[in-house]
Amino acid sequence: MNSKPFLNTVLSPRLLDLYDISNCVVVIIDVFRATSTIATALYNGAAKVIPVDSVPRCIELGKITGGITAGERDGKVVEGLQHGNSPAEYPRSFIEGQTLVLTTTNGTKLLHMALERGASEVITGSFPNLSTVCDHLVHSGKNVILGCSAWKDKFNLEDTLFAGAVIQRIKEHFTIHCDSSLMAENMYALHQNDMPSFIRKTTHWHRLAAYGMEKDLDYCVSIDVANVLPVYTNGALLVNPQ
Amino acid sequence: MNSKPFLNTVLSPRLLDLYDISNCVVVIIDVFRATSTIATALYNGAAKVIPVDSVPRCIELGKITGGITAGERDGKVVEGLQHGNSPAEYPRSFIEGQTLVLTTTNGTKLLHMALERGASEVITGSFPNLSTVCDHLVHSGKNVILGCSAWKDKFNLEDTLFAGAVIQRIKEHFTIHCDSSLMAENMYALHQNDMPSFIRKTTHWHRLAAYGMEKDLDYCVSIDVANVLPVYTNGALLVNPQ
Repeated sequence: MNSKPFLNTVLSPRLLDLYDISNCVVVIIDVFRATSTIATALYNGAAKVIPVDSVPRCIELGKITGGITAGERDGKVVEGLQHGNSPAEYPRSFIEGQTLVLTTTNGTKLLHMALERGASEVITGSFPNLSTVCDHLVHSGKNVILGCSAWKDKFNLEDTLFAGAVIQRIKEHFTIHCDSSLMAENMYALHQNDMPSFIRKTTHWHRLAAYGMEKDLDYCVSIDVANVLPVYTNGALLVNPQ
Repeated sequence: MNSKPFLNTVLSPRLLDLYDISNCVVVIIDVFRATSTIATALYNGAAKVIPVDSVPRCIELGKITGGITAGERDGKVVEGLQHGNSPAEYPRSFIEGQTLVLTTTNGTKLLHMALERGASEVITGSFPNLSTVCDHLVHSGKNVILGCSAWKDKFNLEDTLFAGAVIQRIKEHFTIHCDSSLMAENMYALHQNDMPSFIRKTTHWHRLAAYGMEKDLDYCVSIDVANVLPVYTNGALLVNPQ
């Protein structure tokens, strides 16, 4: 029993340094919409996704890699970039074989923090790739940090619900002494059968739905519609890197 | 509708600076056990409770005020102090008319942060004084921050459950656009009828129960057994200060 690896849930990037993550797989969770879009682009055959934290860096890497640049602010494509953050913009017919350079704020920040703090592996997760993430965590046998990207460091529900969905599926394989994880599991159990209506009560929903993104948000809580494992390797998220 | 004051829940001291608290009543919540003990001592007639963050400061203020010094580490009274942190140590026969100088870590830290950041009023709450806290928040008509003291900055469930209990009772009087509050309310609704068993699953329970404090912890989640309003005034918590 005591040899099971640990699993902890971190509810905001602000709380990451309270945990020793040096021997952990860190799952970056940014359900609305970064990690949902990343899974979708890779599922549809993107060669890689490069997550960056600023528009100038996005433009720069777009030029260097020949990749597609993407980013939004206030619901519109940022001037100087080519596409938006919606998973619906990246069907196979468009993204296959391409490099996507994606500006995000919350998710990218947490990802870089996890790398700086010495995570042994960084992957990304959202409902579209729930099963693949769970299978990987169980098979890796390492300690796990479920890292919620939050919204400008404030707690959010959609990332917490995804952490809860993971915990519900894999908890028997881990040692879990963590109130955040217990809460997340409870919240997902409470709402797993009313997700489309419950997410309409979250603050992030109200923020994004104002920009006409309801269909996107419903997609982002759809389970296993883009089952790939994005693994951060040499500056980019790749599927099954060697 | 739009003129209702705002209510937000802050899940850890680390997240307090994400909120403008300058026009707010801040409720310091440290259920296990600081704010439960504070309510109890004042309910039983203590003249005041001075919360301090270190043992030397506790000893110093005990000398200056002639007060009773109290503090524990690892379940034992700290050397140089007179009493522990248990609410059961402060019956009326002992504490009436006395000043209690109490060392706590998580709760005192958050209280001082709230003062430094310009809260317009700082009060303390826990299940023993739930109704009095709720009545005060409704009648004050100010914006509210429910501040969870957490455990060394990590999210904890017992403080969150108290926030949820407050929200359940007073939500119709406030504008609440806050995922932390929605989660807290959900968690309390889910567990309000199984609190004694549910709190036995929390990390803090396991930490303190190891020191034989089960009876204390059950008391700390008992509603309205010490209904006073501790208000921070001139360095101390007082009941109904002028």
